[in-house]
Amino acid sequence: MNIVDKLIENTIRTKNPTVVGLDPDLSKIPACYKKESAENPFQAVANVIYEFNRDIIDTVADLVPAVKPQMAFYEKYGSCGVAAFEKTVSYAKSKGLVVIEDAKRNDIGNTAKAYADGHLGKVELLDESYAPSIDADFLTVTPFLGSESLKPFIDICVQNQKGIFVLVKTSNISSGEIQDVVCENGLTVSQNIAKYLAEQAEKHMGERGYSAIGAVVGATYPAEAKKLRQFMPKNYFLVPGYGAQGGCAEDIVPCFCQDGLGLIVNSSRGILYTHMTAFERENLTKAEYLHKVKNAVLVMQEQIYNTLKTHYPNMIY
Amino acid sequence: MNIVDKLIENTIRTKNPTVVGLDPDLSKIPACYKKESAENPFQAVANVIYEFNRDIIDTVADLVPAVKPQMAFYEKYGSCGVAAFEKTVSYAKSKGLVVIEDAKRNDIGNTAKAYADGHLGKVELLDESYAPSIDADFLTVTPFLGSESLKPFIDICVQNQKGIFVLVKTSNISSGEIQDVVCENGLTVSQNIAKYLAEQAEKHMGERGYSAIGAVVGATYPAEAKKLRQFMPKNYFLVPGYGAQGGCAEDIVPCFCQDGLGLIVNSSRGILYTHMTAFERENLTKAEYLHKVKNAVLVMQEQIYNTLKTHYPNMIY
Repeated sequence: MNIVDKLIENTIRTKNPTVVGLDPDLSKIPACYKKESAENPFQAVANVIYEFNRDIIDTVADLVPAVKPQMAFYEKYGSCGVAAFEKTVSYAKSKGLVVIEDAKRNDIGNTAKAYADGHLGKVELLDESYAPSIDADFLTVTPFLGSESLKPFIDICVQNQKGIFVLVKTSNISSGEIQDVVCENGLTVSQNIAKYLAEQAEKHMGERGYSAIGAVVGATYPAEAKKLRQFMPKNYFLVPGYGAQGGCAEDIVPCFCQDGLGLIVNSSRGILYTHMTAFERENLTKAEYLHKVKNAVLVMQEQIYNTLKTHYPNMIY
Repeated sequence: MNIVDKLIENTIRTKNPTVVGLDPDLSKIPACYKKESAENPFQAVANVIYEFNRDIIDTVADLVPAVKPQMAFYEKYGSCGVAAFEKTVSYAKSKGLVVIEDAKRNDIGNTAKAYADGHLGKVELLDESYAPSIDADFLTVTPFLGSESLKPFIDICVQNQKGIFVLVKTSNISSGEIQDVVCENGLTVSQNIAKYLAEQAEKHMGERGYSAIGAVVGATYPAEAKKLRQFMPKNYFLVPGYGAQGGCAEDIVPCFCQDGLGLIVNSSRGILYTHMTAFERENLTKAEYLHKVKNAVLVMQEQIYNTLKTHYPNMIY
């Protein structure tokens, strides 16, 4: 099954085009999770992260279609952190969630292929070929090295029914420095990447008319996002910047297609952390904390779903 | 000590401005290293990689100033591979080598800071703050998200006497698609990044007049590289594309400064693999293989050193 179809099925079932970011930040995780242990201190943190993620996943598995673990917050703790990442991916998949690995990888030639193999493909070991130990469904990819650097990822996606989200227009303040520069053909750097991805989309279409060759398009630049949707009518979008970064439901409506599909909106801090005061972070029980998480997911679902229904009364869920 | 000064000291001592890339590619590593073991198959590969790297490091430690492990070839094997990466970094440092981690990381805000902390900085664990378990000297960083995304890395470098090499002009064929686009101020995207890095260089200068806020500038575009040196007179360069990718010694001369310093040239495949026939890969002993590696390092040193001496007779080593 093409992974974009699984993402769409999950979205329709949960009536929720959002994804929960799994950004385990030790300075913000509630104190009730932070048990020291006799193990080495990196492993102790990895244990905390995995236990935290498992509870979040159990809380949101029936409410959202996907989770998005951000590799930086795992890799920070080296191989122990990466092992916690692997366990998190595996646990989330076992609960039926689609896993979008946010790692913004890229390189050239064989090196790009090594990343693609190791996150989305197969790896040849000494005896035979295995699924990689980091076995995500989607991976975010950065395009600074040009289209040739994207190709190994696209090939692996086609071969293994996986997906990518290529950074096209990011949500941060300085994103325009490179992404908004106008090229000789009159299009911006972002728009030219979009054009390339639209062509590549055809190689890897799901049954519902969308492609798993996706694009990251920030919620914080709605006018540009609207144009990018015109360039990429079939590429699935991953939209960061909602909530904590300032994007609202009305901002993202033009990125959706009439069927209410075509994109998934991420929230990380808004779901995991910003609903707690410092006092609560120190004193909540796990059950109290997870109740807040569940509530934050439901509020976001309602905001986005209701806004969508107003604009697209014929959406399919 | 500013890490750029250590890199320079090592360069002068070895009379060798080159760096050996540690790209462990299982399909190219000589058969004599590929022992299966009773452990899980990912750990078995990680063991092969580490043993291979240790021998390479022992062979080149007195001949080159630095090694550049390419993270993609470790991460491919998940947490086991990352553990082999950590051990490789640690072993190379114990032999006096500077370690340039080639991982082309980046993200925004707190996420960028998590990468910077985890590769170059300090990490807060449950009890106290530690050096990260991946504790490189330099990290390669990609600039697609704009200057704001580079700042956390620069700050961490200044705080911890570490360095970065930001991708400015890469060696691959499609690098121009984004990097050569001309901005409103008449400079290319590459040149504008260079301008920014030249300003930032001042924040983190070593005693010999160079900055550890460095730039990746490919050997395959010598005319552009020459211009980029004018934009960045003090930033150290990491130059890929020599040898296997087609760059030659004459191509990189204009990137050096008159003192014979200012950059370090990478070769990975040329040192590790391309000197072997398929028959040799299957049949060489470790001693025979490492002799070929040593020879490849010496040939590259001689080519570059002699070419430099011709152009810069007053260079300082």
